Amino acid sequence: MKKLSVIKIGGNVIDNSEKLHQFLLDFTALPGDKILIHGGGKIATELGVTLGVEAKMVEGRRITDIETLRVVTMVYAGLINKNMVAQLQAKGCNAIGLTGADGNLIKAVKRPVKDIDYGYVGDLDASSVSTETLSSLLNAGLVPVFCAITHDGDAQLLNTNADTIAAAVAVAMSSLYETSLIYCFEKRGVLRDVDDENSLVTEIRMEQFDALKEEGVVSGGMIPKLHNAFEAIKSGVSAVYIGKADELPQINGSNFGTRLIK
Amino acid sequence: MKKLSVIKIGGNVIDNSEKLHQFLLDFTALPGDKILIHGGGKIATELGVTLGVEAKMVEGRRITDIETLRVVTMVYAGLINKNMVAQLQAKGCNAIGLTGADGNLIKAVKRPVKDIDYGYVGDLDASSVSTETLSSLLNAGLVPVFCAITHDGDAQLLNTNADTIAAAVAVAMSSLYETSLIYCFEKRGVLRDVDDENSLVTEIRMEQFDALKEEGVVSGGMIPKLHNAFEAIKSGVSAVYIGKADELPQINGSNFGTRLIK
Repeated sequence: MKKLSVIKIGGNVIDNSEKLHQFLLDFTALPGDKILIHGGGKIATELGVTLGVEAKMVEGRRITDIETLRVVTMVYAGLINKNMVAQLQAKGCNAIGLTGADGNLIKAVKRPVKDIDYGYVGDLDASSVSTETLSSLLNAGLVPVFCAITHDGDAQLLNTNADTIAAAVAVAMSSLYETSLIYCFEKRGVLRDVDDENSLVTEIRMEQFDALKEEGVVSGGMIPKLHNAFEAIKSGVSAVYIGKADELPQINGSNFGTRLIK
Repeated sequence: MKKLSVIKIGGNVIDNSEKLHQFLLDFTALPGDKILIHGGGKIATELGVTLGVEAKMVEGRRITDIETLRVVTMVYAGLINKNMVAQLQAKGCNAIGLTGADGNLIKAVKRPVKDIDYGYVGDLDASSVSTETLSSLLNAGLVPVFCAITHDGDAQLLNTNADTIAAAVAVAMSSLYETSLIYCFEKRGVLRDVDDENSLVTEIRMEQFDALKEEGVVSGGMIPKLHNAFEAIKSGVSAVYIGKADELPQINGSNFGTRLIK
């Protein structure tokens, strides 16, 4: 089976042009087939403010109304995605910028209204991903770069969580590729002591997860992150890595962040 | 040789949601391989005004400064292109939205500064088009939908004339496909009497072009349009059609607008 890396970066990389430049160099140097998924960053929020589109919150949750969807479509799919593609091209990476609407690659479902109406937000799982078309792009030598916008197949674009897209793409593609899922975030990975970057836990096996939760090594927002990572592994992904964007080159020596395996 | 239609629509279709809906239905129904190129429309100008980015003019020519480039990247590549793709998907057309940066499909050159500095504007010809990658997309069953943004291969996006992109793509692809180039605009085609839509000239052969100019049947802005069309034909395009978007279905009976041939 051919190898595939599915890599997700967030706003902390996108908002810092030097960090982004270095990351895109490192991403380009990564061998084998690969897919990039990027989050939003501050630009959408700033543009929203300039346009008088206020961030809508209901019970502490962010809502995507139709004006917000317009803004994120412009910023994520237009400004950020296309500039990232142009930068990757300049570095020798044959990137192609995509939303889930393009090639019907990710067909999500508008989140059903229960207690909260989240607005134009997409929910998805691995069955949402068109693996055949995505493989065609990879086989044509292209490197798919997804922003966090999907569609519902009925002409509606949907704002979608980039972590969820990355997991869904990785799980779906694991039927065709030996797939690694790599989350880049602010920290070096799971840390035994949150304030000590040298206390990195380099590997967690699924069977250790419960014990690490009880010990408190994994806590707070890291619990759902790791839970979702192990769900992806249960569904076919070979390994999930959680680490810092600027340490990406170390992944070639399996020395990047925290490695989660079966 | 397989047939390919390269179709260009302008702002008059994009700015009218009913017209656009009907055009996208007609485009979806068109048999064979096809590529869509769309212009900008009023939305970019309106967003520019809201953001305080004024349209810059020098000697009557529109200039693309860096702020204008940001706006058109957001609107053309983000808002318009991705909503058009989502609408095409809903109609059963497997569209994929693209700029020239994606897959390095159209590598243009920033217009050299002579009398006027046009800013971030791209010039291109048929050699700018990556026919191999574009064919891969068509062979994967995808329908490329280009907005009028290209890149220079050195990380710079460029605002580019959609008519020119359409001609360059059609000429480049004519080495692999029997290619028709179809320009949709406000009128039914070349009219003997500009005020009489029933005075349509249904066909012009290259050898008739000079005589029609002398007679005044072809005048004003139509002269460079037809000149460029015949240049495309000289370079391998089978036929160029100039007509009204809402008459597109008639092209199956070769009964659409003015047909330009060798």
